[in-house]
Parts: sequence; structure tokens; C-alpha cells
Amino acid sequence: MRITVLGSGAWGTSLACLLHQARHAITLWGHDPAQMDNIRRTGRNEPFLPGIAVPKEFTLTHDSAAAVARAELIVAALPSQVFRKVTACLRDFAGIVVSVTKGIEHDSGLSMCGILAETAPRARPVALSGPTFALEVARGIPTACVAASRNEAVARETQELFHRPMFRVYRSQDIEGVELGGALKNVIAIAAGVSDGLGFGDNSKAALVTRAIVEMRRLGVACGAQAETFAGLSGIGDLTVTCFSKLSRNRGFGERLGRGEKPADISASMVQVAEGVPTARSARALARKHGVETPIIDEVHAMLYEEKNARQALQDLLTRELKAEG
Amino acid sequence: MRITVLGSGAWGTSLACLLHQARHAITLWGHDPAQMDNIRRTGRNEPFLPGIAVPKEFTLTHDSAAAVARAELIVAALPSQVFRKVTACLRDFAGIVVSVTKGIEHDSGLSMCGILAETAPRARPVALSGPTFALEVARGIPTACVAASRNEAVARETQELFHRPMFRVYRSQDIEGVELGGALKNVIAIAAGVSDGLGFGDNSKAALVTRAIVEMRRLGVACGAQAETFAGLSGIGDLTVTCFSKLSRNRGFGERLGRGEKPADISASMVQVAEGVPTARSARALARKHGVETPIIDEVHAMLYEEKNARQALQDLLTRELKAEG
Repeated sequence: MRITVLGSGAWGTSLACLLHQARHAITLWGHDPAQMDNIRRTGRNEPFLPGIAVPKEFTLTHDSAAAVARAELIVAALPSQVFRKVTACLRDFAGIVVSVTKGIEHDSGLSMCGILAETAPRARPVALSGPTFALEVARGIPTACVAASRNEAVARETQELFHRPMFRVYRSQDIEGVELGGALKNVIAIAAGVSDGLGFGDNSKAALVTRAIVEMRRLGVACGAQAETFAGLSGIGDLTVTCFSKLSRNRGFGERLGRGEKPADISASMVQVAEGVPTARSARALARKHGVETPIIDEVHAMLYEEKNARQALQDLLTRELKAEG
Repeated sequence: MRITVLGSGAWGTSLACLLHQARHAITLWGHDPAQMDNIRRTGRNEPFLPGIAVPKEFTLTHDSAAAVARAELIVAALPSQVFRKVTACLRDFAGIVVSVTKGIEHDSGLSMCGILAETAPRARPVALSGPTFALEVARGIPTACVAASRNEAVARETQELFHRPMFRVYRSQDIEGVELGGALKNVIAIAAGVSDGLGFGDNSKAALVTRAIVEMRRLGVACGAQAETFAGLSGIGDLTVTCFSKLSRNRGFGERLGRGEKPADISASMVQVAEGVPTARSARALARKHGVETPIIDEVHAMLYEEKNARQALQDLLTRELKAEG
């Protein structure tokens, strides 16, 4: 199959390598010609995917129209902020588009597959999500994730396409729940990182994660998702790993915030986007729209956009009134 | 209030210090006279709680009858294997007994509060559980846990007794669920440690944790617990921290198992018990009794008691057939 991966960051490149192993013909698109040249010249995609060989057989391009012209399937691995702009090239595309981007568009409140319904109206969107650090997948470390589509046949086709002994793909029809879980956990991970940065412990983070899953589920259900999805790989699975792993960019962002750095300075110094930063804004707007209480998201928003002191924010979160659990 | 803590390990000592801060009169009992002498002499309880001062005001004893004679409330912080034997001294005790032990008695399938119903028939048992590393609590790091009793007034009394700004106690009436969550997560943590020891990654562990919570809930519900409890602090909260933290003894046990050490050698070298080891046996027996499928618990049992190769066990867990999630 001819597959085009839109997005040459860590996750796009890692999935392109995975699909190449199953003998698909891969086109990898990135917006930056210098980066594409660099991959071509070195056979690697540093600093995004350190130490991983990128197959010579890839077609590398920075021309999105050319990249998708002959494609039979698209993988969209783009920062959420440019997702709408880049996927405009899919206006006439009628195949499966697998979104692996985790975010919520601020002005519309749409998920990435929601955006696809507008930018690629003939396509069949699938969300692929779960606890999937790109570098671990590239190294062949056992990983499991979920392919979600309202259309079960489409979910099954995607599942079979991506499935490997070390990359297990489950199916879901709750695309809203799968996409929201992935987006919201990045916001929570910033709070978990702040907890680390302030010198709090694993006990504190466990309490935060436990409350976060309730908050994510509550907002998700208000948006039409199924509650059970938040107990799955794209919910609790992705949330826990993002909050506890050293590899998480969003947790790392929060850790620096907790140590007193300014949000703008942290963003400026990062190679890749911490999706939780824009998502905190759009998640808060979504919660307000649906009238849902989201204390953790609100505190992350306050730290990022209202200059709230990190210690005060975490203290406010961890010292709410005594009550029965749940 | 006169409070006696039975058990002078890390958690018993840490809780004794916490209750002492609220000006209660503490008696700390340990079975080993040499250890009690050591605390008396050094003002510390090394190696259990490194660097933490034990108040001089504690009454230290290794005589359990004397320890409980004038007590108004008991905290039982004992290894599960000696819980029945030690709590025999509570035969006539009619107050609240707070069990903080996480385990399941093998022959009876009873939880610790189930044992108390037999050894201390006049007492009012409470289970206190959650993501609570003893050393973090002793250091004043923000922590949250649950006090569970079928009797809500008893749960509330316990909550008020233990609650501090940095130690938040929630209430539950699902004592079965709270106790089972705490016991079972130690078994899962061994599997998570094996994954680490084999050099697998955070993706792998997130997948394991996600499936574990389903397995724990399934067994819990079969035993009469409420499904929601497993989504709380004593379920998912305690499970995640135990699987991801460097501080967990059970995860550490599994890590060494994954590196090829023998179970007996690991146990022999540890200062404190890894409760997941005996619990793997009793949890498996409980699952069989109730006809519940528990693939993770079964594989841990096979590694510990049937000499199954660790890599094979994890591989068998991570490569089950393709299916929809849930």
C-alpha cells in the first residue's frame, strides 16, 4: 500500500518506520526542507528520534500536494496547531486518514477527527491513540494502543495495517472518548510535572492521577464520549505513563514550571511542542461550554495563562475539602 | 487518645509519628526486642525509615498484651503472614482497629479485616489504604488515602483522627473493594517490575497497568466489592504508583526477577516483606474459587511458584489475541 505520513516529528517518523517494516511504500512529509534534507543525508531524524535509522526507501518531501497525490492511506502526525492548515491538502482524499495527533482546536472545540470532517470531507477518519512513546516504538519495545472509528470495518482495517507482535492495536468505536483522553492527559501531565518540580512525591502524583481520571471522564461524557473509554489504553493507560515517565514532554514542561521557570521560556527552549500547553486553553473553554467542573485543568490554565504561582496552584488542588471518595 | 500501633516497620512507624503530631499518646509494638532497643537508643528506626526521628515520647514494647491493655484505638501495620497471630491479643478489644496491612490470607481467602472479625470480634475494623509510601508520609509530602468501614460513623471517626493538611483521608463504605485493591496491586507490581527488569519500556508498563485494573475489578466484583472503588485511590491510585515508582518493594522484587534472580534469593535479601509474593498465591486461589479469569495474577504465580521463565511469562501476557478493547 502507498502510505503518506504527514508530519516528520518523532511519532510520524516512528510510525513510518513501523509501516515500512510491513513492506508498505512510505512517503514522509515535513514542512521544513532543511529537515528533510538532513534525513536524506544522514539516514536519521535527529534530534527527534535519536539513534534510529530511517529507511533509504522513504520518499521524503516538503510538498504536501505531491505527498498525498498518489497515497492510498494517510497518517496525520502533526502538531495540533497546524493540523487544519496541513490537512487542507486532503480535500479530495477518499481513503482512510489515521490521526495520531492529540489536541483540541481552540476556536471550534473540535478534535482532530472533527477537523478532518471539515478539511477532508470524503475521507474516513480514524484516531490511533494510547501510551505510545515514539522512541520506544521505534526500538521495538512492546506497546499497545487503540484504533477508533465509528465505522467498525475501518477500525478493523487500521488495526490490521498497524498491528505487529510488539505493537498491539485494539479497536474502539468511541472516537470522541479516544481522542479526548489523549488530548486531556497532556494537560494533566503538566500538573503532574509541577508536582515533581515542587519536590512533591509519588504519593502526591498518584492522588492527582486518580482525581484526573474522574475529571477527564466527566468532561468526556459531557462531550458525548463513553465513560468506559477513559478506563482503557487511551485514557488511564496514556495518562499514567505520561504523568510518571521521564520521557513525557508535557510532564517535563510542568517540572520546569514547578521549579519556577516561565511558560514562554520553557516553550522557546523545547525542540517539539508540549501539546498540553495549547490544550489547557481549549480544554478549559470546552469545560466552560459544557458547564463541567475541571479543577485540575483550571489550575494548569491558571499557571500557564494567568501567571498563577505553581506552588499555590498545587496547594489549592491538593487541599480541597474533606469528603467521601468519588 | 491512647493509640497502639502493632507493627514497627516503615508504615507502622510513619503512622505512629503522624498520630503523635496530633498529640496522641503512642505505644509502638514490634516483635523484635533488639529492634525496639535500637529505636530507644538511636531515636530512629533504621533501616525501615531512614533519616526520620522517632519521638522520645513513644512507649516502645515487644509485649503485645501490655501494648494493647490500655489502648483506646489500635493500628495494625503487620505483615499479612503474621496478622492473625499478632491480632489474637485483641480478643477482648472493643474499639476501632485500623488495618493498614495489604494482603489476603491464603487458607481462608480472608482480607485483614476479615481476619479481625475472627480474632477481634468485639472491635470495629477499618481499612486505611491508598498510594502511601511510608517515607514520603514521614517527610510530610502531600498524600491522600481512604478509610473504609461498613459503618460510616466509624469511617468518619478514623478520617478525622488521621487527617492532616498533608495527609488527606477520604471515606468509603466498600471495605472489600478497598482491601482487595491494596492487596492485588502488589501482585501486579511484580509483573510491572519484571517488565522493567526485562528492559521493556513505559509503553509496556502502561498497557499492563490498564489491563490490570480490569482484572482487579473483575475479581473484586466477584468477591462482593463495588466496581467504582477500583477507580479510586485504593485501586488505580495505589496501582499506578506501585507499578511506576522506584520506591515500591514489590516492583523492585519483580525487576530482579526479570533480570533472572530466583524468587527465594530475592526474598532472602530483602529487609521487608514483598507482600505481592504471598498474595499471588492467595489471589490465584481466590480467582479459582470464584471462577474469574486473571491472566496477570496467573503469570506472576507461575513465575514465583512454578519456575516459569520471566520473559516467556511477559510475552504470554503481552501477546494475547487481537480483540476490541475492554
